[in-house]
Amino acid sequence: MNNYSRARAGVVGFRGYSGAELVRLLTRHPRVEPVLLEHRADSSERPQPIRPNRPVRVPFEAGVVISEGLAVVFLATPAEVSMELAPSLLEAGARVIDLSGAFRLPDAETYKRWNGEAHTAPGLLSEAVYGLPEFCRKRITQARLIANPGCYSTAANLAIQPLIASGVVDRSTGIVCDAKSGVSGAGRKATLRTSFCEITDNFSAYSIFDHRHVPEVLMTSGIDEAELSFTAQMIPIDRGILETIYFRGVNLSSDADLLAVYTERYKNERFIRLYEPSALPDIQSVNRTNFCDIGVRFDARTRRAVVVSVIDNLVKGAAGQAVQNMNLLLGFDEAEGLS
Amino acid sequence: MNNYSRARAGVVGFRGYSGAELVRLLTRHPRVEPVLLEHRADSSERPQPIRPNRPVRVPFEAGVVISEGLAVVFLATPAEVSMELAPSLLEAGARVIDLSGAFRLPDAETYKRWNGEAHTAPGLLSEAVYGLPEFCRKRITQARLIANPGCYSTAANLAIQPLIASGVVDRSTGIVCDAKSGVSGAGRKATLRTSFCEITDNFSAYSIFDHRHVPEVLMTSGIDEAELSFTAQMIPIDRGILETIYFRGVNLSSDADLLAVYTERYKNERFIRLYEPSALPDIQSVNRTNFCDIGVRFDARTRRAVVVSVIDNLVKGAAGQAVQNMNLLLGFDEAEGLS
Amino acid sequence: MNNYSRARAGVVGFRGYSGAELVRLLTRHPRVEPVLLEHRADSSERPQPIRPNRPVRVPFEAGVVISEGLAVVFLATPAEVSMELAPSLLEAGARVIDLSGAFRLPDAETYKRWNGEAHTAPGLLSEAVYGLPEFCRKRITQARLIANPGCYSTAANLAIQPLIASGVVDRSTGIVCDAKSGVSGAGRKATLRTSFCEITDNFSAYSIFDHRHVPEVLMTSGIDEAELSFTAQMIPIDRGILETIYFRGVNLSSDADLLAVYTERYKNERFIRLYEPSALPDIQSVNRTNFCDIGVRFDARTRRAVVVSVIDNLVKGAAGQAVQNMNLLLGFDEAEGLS
Amino acid sequence: MNNYSRARAGVVGFRGYSGAELVRLLTRHPRVEPVLLEHRADSSERPQPIRPNRPVRVPFEAGVVISEGLAVVFLATPAEVSMELAPSLLEAGARVIDLSGAFRLPDAETYKRWNGEAHTAPGLLSEAVYGLPEFCRKRITQARLIANPGCYSTAANLAIQPLIASGVVDRSTGIVCDAKSGVSGAGRKATLRTSFCEITDNFSAYSIFDHRHVPEVLMTSGIDEAELSFTAQMIPIDRGILETIYFRGVNLSSDADLLAVYTERYKNERFIRLYEPSALPDIQSVNRTNFCDIGVRFDARTRRAVVVSVIDNLVKGAAGQAVQNMNLLLGFDEAEGLS
Repeated sequence: MNNYSRARAGVVGFRGYSGAELVRLLTRHPRVEPVLLEHRADSSERPQPIRPNRPVRVPFEAGVVISEGLAVVFLATPAEVSMELAPSLLEAGARVIDLSGAFRLPDAETYKRWNGEAHTAPGLLSEAVYGLPEFCRKRITQARLIANPGCYSTAANLAIQPLIASGVVDRSTGIVCDAKSGVSGAGRKATLRTSFCEITDNFSAYSIFDHRHVPEVLMTSGIDEAELSFTAQMIPIDRGILETIYFRGVNLSSDADLLAVYTERYKNERFIRLYEPSALPDIQSVNRTNFCDIGVRFDARTRRAVVVSVIDNLVKGAAGQAVQNMNLLLGFDEAEGLS
Repeated sequence: MNNYSRARAGVVGFRGYSGAELVRLLTRHPRVEPVLLEHRADSSERPQPIRPNRPVRVPFEAGVVISEGLAVVFLATPAEVSMELAPSLLEAGARVIDLSGAFRLPDAETYKRWNGEAHTAPGLLSEAVYGLPEFCRKRITQARLIANPGCYSTAANLAIQPLIASGVVDRSTGIVCDAKSGVSGAGRKATLRTSFCEITDNFSAYSIFDHRHVPEVLMTSGIDEAELSFTAQMIPIDRGILETIYFRGVNLSSDADLLAVYTERYKNERFIRLYEPSALPDIQSVNRTNFCDIGVRFDARTRRAVVVSVIDNLVKGAAGQAVQNMNLLLGFDEAEGLS
Repeated sequence: MNNYSRARAGVVGFRGYSGAELVRLLTRHPRVEPVLLEHRADSSERPQPIRPNRPVRVPFEAGVVISEGLAVVFLATPAEVSMELAPSLLEAGARVIDLSGAFRLPDAETYKRWNGEAHTAPGLLSEAVYGLPEFCRKRITQARLIANPGCYSTAANLAIQPLIASGVVDRSTGIVCDAKSGVSGAGRKATLRTSFCEITDNFSAYSIFDHRHVPEVLMTSGIDEAELSFTAQMIPIDRGILETIYFRGVNLSSDADLLAVYTERYKNERFIRLYEPSALPDIQSVNRTNFCDIGVRFDARTRRAVVVSVIDNLVKGAAGQAVQNMNLLLGFDEAEGLS
Repeated sequence: MNNYSRARAGVVGFRGYSGAELVRLLTRHPRVEPVLLEHRADSSERPQPIRPNRPVRVPFEAGVVISEGLAVVFLATPAEVSMELAPSLLEAGARVIDLSGAFRLPDAETYKRWNGEAHTAPGLLSEAVYGLPEFCRKRITQARLIANPGCYSTAANLAIQPLIASGVVDRSTGIVCDAKSGVSGAGRKATLRTSFCEITDNFSAYSIFDHRHVPEVLMTSGIDEAELSFTAQMIPIDRGILETIYFRGVNLSSDADLLAVYTERYKNERFIRLYEPSALPDIQSVNRTNFCDIGVRFDARTRRAVVVSVIDNLVKGAAGQAVQNMNLLLGFDEAEGLS
């Protein structure tokens, strides 16, 4: 297959961790050619070898969608930049997959409540499709604007939604989601909080109850804020998320029953992997893959239940899921370039 | 003060992580001189500089308590070794502080249930005093045999017991204790599970519900097994424990109320530090100290409560607490050598 | 392409770090199907998801080469196991790529000197071809037994040999190769030396002058033992090697001259990447790739020269280079499955 | 001893890594009381527990030396701030120990060459005493302004100077000093280069030949720039420096001869520890201590020699050495507060 038959996919924000992972995935994708869109020059690039074959790089400017023939544009940018760029890209006819939190929530009010700032492109909120393929596959294929989910919320929703839908949670006692993430989830901007000496040999809980990914979980899983205690914590590792989810089970008589909830729900899903109750996934289980791995424990006598959900925050939690969405959008096999 | 006026303290198991930390603390302690008791020679010692001043090292043998004039002997050994050595040491007149799990539980049946093996010195279980000074100070001063608490249970009990005692937990919904520990908690024995490449870039939940430290929490805090969901997890760091504790509050109208539970309970404790609700301790907060630091969050509208409890597992979770117990036992200031 | 047209490649030692990396690479390779050969069962496997598509796994036994139709067998085993298994595999008609140090040196005497133990299959030493494609490509294509190079020696030879061959080293003053490696280079066997708490927050020089990879450098680069000061050091990372190589330059008038030595030598090599003298590769530059990246510095006034050479020890230093060798052996494109 | 009999020591820059370590050491020092001098408020402080006993903190302002009765002031500040503050502090009668590179070099020209910027207080350069006690003890006791040495140069000088002084280096072939440092050496300012995701799983050579600590080595050891190849490299650890030093030996017939050079030179030094040639120190050997540990290797047949020198960059490489200098300056025992 020569390059002319490949779809061209623009990437804004290609120096960030999600953006760089996206370029890596797109470069290996057999049906797509990445085009790096230089929005703001900066000096943060790593040393590069002398070699001829690099992705095309062009300035981001009005008309770039047409001049470069971009079938899709990925925004791996902060929310405020995504809100600024998305309208004109859509107008120019591009389909847009936004990796920021700009378009994930249903309305400007909810956005303001969880993000603290006003939304600057509220007209797009009702059109944007939440890009969690396991739950919104059909709408994704027809979207113009896809809001790629947050990393924490991806791991949480894939674990929690089936529990709620199948009625195995005693909702009177609530759900605890104790979430731990690698540092790349905080982005590539230099901050004291993410500097090496502050992170190494440390572990910290940095957001309790009010992390901005929480409303995505409430929205997808259909639970009320009062039902969910969510804590975001920082592990001294580069990438990976593990969430330990606690609840009291109802309508369950064994570990096997709990596992069956997921087996049934995900029997046709290629990026969800399950474990026998005797085993549990850890963060290395999904390193550099687009999988979400789920393990379960249930103690029938006391009704205590635990679900462990792991993803790579840069893949299933960001760039990999964005490629999965692109595959759906452009009519490719959903797993193309992701295995 | 010359050496003759110092108490002599024997240490068995001085090559392990807790034992080495203990030797470090005792070497700096102004009123004690450590005596290393060589129980089993091995080749695991790190390279040592050429220098004259090292702690005295003698073979562990019958009569060593008297020949070396040991006021106290620390056992930083596996439980099975502690069960083997403690009886004869006590008979020889030593006071014993055991850092293993051998003597922490009230009876042989409970020991067997949580450890899987039979207890080989059950006659000592009723005599042994649980060495958590904040809760058992008086009995510690008079003990012959002190069972130094587990690391996970120390962080859990110091956070949970005051909540239960003050009636601020809605016990119908249970308590979640999501615990994370550095790797030194697993001891110095070479295992694949604790080898560098398995731990680094990883995070794993390795024990759900049935960790052997759980019964210490049930015992001290007076809660039932069904009320507590405890998970033990491994952080890729050397030392430190952070526990995130979740419950639904009752009889609380604000963050400040929750903080007041601890302020009141610990107003005379020198090794418990509290944080304003706007701040939270992390693992670096207590690195190489004997402090347990506690931070709180409470959302009055939804009654969701979170307490974060951190310790250094080798200090307040092992060697430091053992020295604190020794200070009480020998009539020294409780903080001697620990600040 | 369906599976029937793929060559079948056996892997002994698939649980080790090099073996697991090899299975990962072979699974993605478009022209090969891996067959896991169970030589010794053990319990060291990580938790595995429930899923149908795993590589075929069969017992290693006499006749397996024929019964499984293996075109090639990789030995990712300790040297003593490789010496035991290689003869019968070759007799059965397999081509063998050995990742251990068993067959890299020219004779049994040299082997004994650097490894301390007698060689148990010395008859194969003269036949074995040293598998460094950039230097031995032609012989590799015709080999029955390929000795895949050591990780340290790969990074060293690719940097040093062109310097010697082009006469830019003042050999009267010698070469220093200060080598640093990630921990996976030490293999997956549990040892205290490679346990997490001994490695993290540490850096150590563990072998000076006499590392067993040194003779591979002397052999390939054609220098004498007295000319090379080689130190092996452990970095607290999973994977990657960086070697800092020092010498006094002759016949060089600038950085550019030094770079030109490599540009010329490697102009047709696809797995060697060079850097402008203003930039230097680091270990992340080659993470999970089969590249060897080389950067240079030269101070013309004082004739001091430094070359930095980096590889991923599990890829170009082990499994990737083994696949590169297999590609040559089986007539595939040399980079197949490696980009 | 009550507080009135303690000397008061001001610290400017107490939030940085060296400054915080200094405060930690001074707090435990039996003869000194630290006074934190707030020069520039910032928001970089870690969460702090609620507790009464913290070091005194006052604004840095004209007159503070007298109003607070400061016997000594430590500047743990960037060089440009030290150049700005030192003159007025000295005028106010304080003795100053500067931890930056501002006053280490003999003249403004040398400063400019290695630091790229002009010196703004050149009048103090001839007065400042280089604070390496093992070499400049007597002058230190009488100094007004002490230039605390660089971390790299401390480890290098303590290893190299005795070699040069005793004539065991073949100077025609030069010395290689391959230096590796933990990240805290780069200071606490947030930069992309020292952010967690850029450092972890990485190792990089970031300065070849021209690190600004090099001239301190040339000056103290009395060698010429052309004789020394120095490389500064970053290890993914918080603290610690290991330098591997290579040369060709002369006038040496064994390992023992090389060790004897140091044994003789350092027989009265309490912060230098040596190792038998069969052992080598690593970075954990000196963690959180003021020791410089030195190990040796010598191959008599080929005259290849290696010396390994390790320090904790924040202690012997910064704050600990500053306290050692203060002890000399104020007439205390040199090791007071450092063991």
